[in-house]
Amino acid sequence: MAHGRQLPLSRRSLLGGTAALAGAGTLTATATGTASAAPAAASRTVDVVIVGGGLAGLTAARDLVAAGRTVAVLEARDRVGGRVLGLTLPNGGVTEGGGEFIGPTQDRIKALADSLGVATFATYNTGKNLLYKDGKKSAYATDGLLGSVPPVDAAGLANAAIVQASLDDMAKQVPVDAPWTAAKAAEWDRQTFESWLRANAVIPSAKFLLDVACTSIFSAEPRELSLLFVLFYIAAAGNEQTPGTLERLTETANGAQELRFVGGSQLVPIKLAATLGDRVVLNAPVRTIARSGSSYVVTADGVTVTAKRVVVAVPPPLAARISYDPLLPAGRDQLTQRLPMASVGKAIAIYDTPFWRADGLNGQVVSDTGAVSSTFDNSPPDASYGALMGFIEADKMRALDAAPADTVKAAVLADFATYFGDRAKTPTSFVLQRWNNEAYTRGGPVSIAAPGVLTQYGPALRAPVGGIHWAGTETSIHWMGFMDGAVRSGERVAKEVLAEL
Amino acid sequence: MAHGRQLPLSRRSLLGGTAALAGAGTLTATATGTASAAPAAASRTVDVVIVGGGLAGLTAARDLVAAGRTVAVLEARDRVGGRVLGLTLPNGGVTEGGGEFIGPTQDRIKALADSLGVATFATYNTGKNLLYKDGKKSAYATDGLLGSVPPVDAAGLANAAIVQASLDDMAKQVPVDAPWTAAKAAEWDRQTFESWLRANAVIPSAKFLLDVACTSIFSAEPRELSLLFVLFYIAAAGNEQTPGTLERLTETANGAQELRFVGGSQLVPIKLAATLGDRVVLNAPVRTIARSGSSYVVTADGVTVTAKRVVVAVPPPLAARISYDPLLPAGRDQLTQRLPMASVGKAIAIYDTPFWRADGLNGQVVSDTGAVSSTFDNSPPDASYGALMGFIEADKMRALDAAPADTVKAAVLADFATYFGDRAKTPTSFVLQRWNNEAYTRGGPVSIAAPGVLTQYGPALRAPVGGIHWAGTETSIHWMGFMDGAVRSGERVAKEVLAEL
Repeated sequence: MAHGRQLPLSRRSLLGGTAALAGAGTLTATATGTASAAPAAASRTVDVVIVGGGLAGLTAARDLVAAGRTVAVLEARDRVGGRVLGLTLPNGGVTEGGGEFIGPTQDRIKALADSLGVATFATYNTGKNLLYKDGKKSAYATDGLLGSVPPVDAAGLANAAIVQASLDDMAKQVPVDAPWTAAKAAEWDRQTFESWLRANAVIPSAKFLLDVACTSIFSAEPRELSLLFVLFYIAAAGNEQTPGTLERLTETANGAQELRFVGGSQLVPIKLAATLGDRVVLNAPVRTIARSGSSYVVTADGVTVTAKRVVVAVPPPLAARISYDPLLPAGRDQLTQRLPMASVGKAIAIYDTPFWRADGLNGQVVSDTGAVSSTFDNSPPDASYGALMGFIEADKMRALDAAPADTVKAAVLADFATYFGDRAKTPTSFVLQRWNNEAYTRGGPVSIAAPGVLTQYGPALRAPVGGIHWAGTETSIHWMGFMDGAVRSGERVAKEVLAEL
Repeated sequence: MAHGRQLPLSRRSLLGGTAALAGAGTLTATATGTASAAPAAASRTVDVVIVGGGLAGLTAARDLVAAGRTVAVLEARDRVGGRVLGLTLPNGGVTEGGGEFIGPTQDRIKALADSLGVATFATYNTGKNLLYKDGKKSAYATDGLLGSVPPVDAAGLANAAIVQASLDDMAKQVPVDAPWTAAKAAEWDRQTFESWLRANAVIPSAKFLLDVACTSIFSAEPRELSLLFVLFYIAAAGNEQTPGTLERLTETANGAQELRFVGGSQLVPIKLAATLGDRVVLNAPVRTIARSGSSYVVTADGVTVTAKRVVVAVPPPLAARISYDPLLPAGRDQLTQRLPMASVGKAIAIYDTPFWRADGLNGQVVSDTGAVSSTFDNSPPDASYGALMGFIEADKMRALDAAPADTVKAAVLADFATYFGDRAKTPTSFVLQRWNNEAYTRGGPVSIAAPGVLTQYGPALRAPVGGIHWAGTETSIHWMGFMDGAVRSGERVAKEVLAEL
């Protein structure tokens, strides 16, 4: 590889003007061509090149740097954080466009945030939930979905409780590090969650509650999911000491929606990236990963990195879009053909005040209609303004992927007004984040698995291919699909790589 | 785009020395850079650029050229034909590594072959089939699987016949041009074929026969498939006049395995490409498709083509690996995340003679064991040597994806010996084609759909995106998954494009 002039730091540094830290590897650029040539391409040589500047990639970089290794993190976007995104509001506040909540047993994201001085606060959870069903609105006490007592018929509640217990029981039989080895893996991986629900959630209101739980958790419809994948996901909603439960996935208090980050969750990757300085290269979508002797050459737009090891920390369907030389093993490639992103968006309406609080409502809705079927109070900790966030999920998101933003806004505000009254119709501002439309995510919040995928291809999820290692929340055995899973995957992959270097 | 020196024809012509035909568009090259620059990149300007030189892309090119349009076909490999591949044997013969058979109602591949002077001959089908089950071998009269009477228990046969009739009945209710509009589409697309089979093929021998039919047809296990997708595929196994049936998919005589091509099926794309001359560019994997004003700029390794319209004629998971600017709509992108390639290989053992014929066997096996669970007599029409072909499908292929070729050979020959006796152990040569390991296919024979995909994303299969049109057998409403479907898709897309130009 040719070496040339120093890359202007201002062009690619994460936070303009940050000096390259010691240990960031050689940093050179080579100019090619004449009038018709491509832009100057920079080149670097490091121990480990990391593809993706989300929480997984950045955490891996942190641990590798702490162990004295040189790294480069290549991020396709002009920002770090991946599926974690703060949206700046006209009023100067920041609201959550992506991964937002943390909860009990999510120890690794918590530890990371603590280490960076990013504080948490409790998700607003005072007052009653709303159930909107069959055109009627009912407020009910306690939070969450299944652990609470939504005002549906007693038979449905009893049925839902039995289904929930069954799912938890089955999930306990799924080893989180190898779901495909569960005694009943074949049985559970040959049917959709929908087929299983139809056989078990036989009371309509129970099926409704489970359907809402499914779309809330996965942003996918039950027909899209393998039962085994659902059981794995439940099992993974815990840590090494505490097995996962469905309730921990769905609840606010004592659940995955318990806490938020002061200043917004993207502060965590932003602050983490700041500690890495110019090791992080933005606007650098990776196109090829090629082995060259005992090294790898990773080519991104505008920069080429040579490294001993590669960490790919992007979702599986995006990892599939990189060209690998030599070719990946068939099992790995076909896995990445079979882990599509689910479909999600978030819509946040901003008001002068969180007016629903005065009505005794906590801002959390479960609905059987509308574009938005679950909401949260996303106001800042000081409630200096009100923020109502609606998830747009699965079929409902797909139906609006191609709609003009104004159409989505109108649909969301109509829903908010149905749930919280006419005041909801006139927010001071409105922001919309449609993850399906993002080039470097193409869906969200997480990859999902249809029947057959885990039992056929599961072992390829984390198995390194030569010097290429895999990270990202999809590879985590705890809290897959969450920020915590991303951080865990970064920590795991760093250990994996360090053991080899 | 810069224009420079004439591209040396010998570098990229399909059949060395073929002169560029009139109407092949401007053909220029621009050299970039200095010592460190990339290789010279050619550029062309045509009416329509076609991505993929398989039957679909080449057929589209034929029709566009016939209508007076200029085209360029960009093919990633160093050969045309895609999933249709002739393998040259040490004895000078050619055997089939990919798509091989044609049958009744496959009118468009037949017409194309006729027009190119490629003749057909009957698949060898004289003598008895073999069933190998529970460690026992039984010969039985008539060919095929479900339409014949394999020697299993009467209850199983009766059950299989009822299941077959049910599938055909349901398939009749599926509109091939829009399976997602079937009255029961939602019901059929929320369960796996496996779930449905378990409820309907309740006698073990019936389930066995249906499982073998499934892996033979799709190279996928029943758990991987949406019931709706299976019904669509059955419905598509016919033409405009004659609805598809399961039997037409599985049979040799009167079925999809009835005929073969003299000289090998790849003669069809090879001869078709020859008529296109230097319009076909080999070794040109396409990386980006970018809109530029009212044109598109398609960039492949070594060549850039500017065109008014683009036809993408590669399988959906490979189409996903191209970078599009502007971004594709979410529905199209997420569709391509959800149509993985099935898993298939073909192993062909060559013998001095087709010795099984003397034993009264037609070379067709159905087996419940081994790496190979279905075989065909792939000898040439003059039987100047014997060729026994075994399909390696679904789980069985996946289990051998990473195995050394010798291991696969040993497994296949052991199976052949089990079915046809010890003479099968000592072929004069042996060839193996593992489609999962091919960079520009990554599986085969066709994309498959899990539950939810057709109802959620089906309309995006063929809907053009601006000036980008979609072809390939996966987009065909008749004979999807077959050579005929590929040809039909090429004819359909050419009409679509011509209507716009």
